[in-house]
Amino acid sequence: MSFSLDARLQADSTPVATLALCDLRLVNDIRFPWLLLVPRRAGAVELHELTTQDRLVLIEECAAAAQALLTVAGPGKINVAALGNIVSQLHVHVVLRRRGDAAWPGPVWGQGEAEPYDPAERDARVAALARALPQ
Amino acid sequence: MSFSLDARLQADSTPVATLALCDLRLVNDIRFPWLLLVPRRAGAVELHELTTQDRLVLIEECAAAAQALLTVAGPGKINVAALGNIVSQLHVHVVLRRRGDAAWPGPVWGQGEAEPYDPAERDARVAALARALPQ
Repeated sequence: MSFSLDARLQADSTPVATLALCDLRLVNDIRFPWLLLVPRRAGAVELHELTTQDRLVLIEECAAAAQALLTVAGPGKINVAALGNIVSQLHVHVVLRRRGDAAWPGPVWGQGEAEPYDPAERDARVAALARALPQ
Repeated sequence: MSFSLDARLQADSTPVATLALCDLRLVNDIRFPWLLLVPRRAGAVELHELTTQDRLVLIEECAAAAQALLTVAGPGKINVAALGNIVSQLHVHVVLRRRGDAAWPGPVWGQGEAEPYDPAERDARVAALARALPQ
């Protein structure tokens, strides 16, 4: 079985970079600076089912994603989560939160409707995030 | 500055085990089998501010916590999250979710009121979780 990105994750987000383990993607919702990391491991559902080596790479890629968000979108609190109650393919959310954002202080999942980026604004954000990643 | 557990985390949970990096605690809410991991690092707020070595240990301790929950409470979907929008001290939630639970398929945070364990039931659960951890 080869890896293929879940159709719903694909529809809701845009590629930013191909990291060592994960596809890094920007969620198309201007309410929150929000990245997804999707390990390219066919059939992966749970963090504890990955190898130790994959978990190590994944948590480092989460840290890099958080720092890129902070560089591009300014200060805030980082939320990191692997839920998968709706889309079972293993994916990790890295979201920059701010006091007074559309869900603060609650979680972002299931809160209202996504507000898509203007395509030019989205492309600029994707490019800035890709530049902000550690080389 | 030495580590001390946040007063709210302490009030809402019960100690299960002292792991290499984290205090492992059971959240006092019978609606969800729910563990907290709190790295004993004074002042830690964000995952990306830990050392790489601490992150590696933390993600392995999260995996061990998830497997202990599954051993003790039966099958389900694991949710893992570091949020910290309300309590800033770095802590990671590991929650066993089931179709039809009190928040399914949404996140557990901010959903209704916690329903505390009967103390004897809580102590039995804590003992079972401690036994289920890898030695």
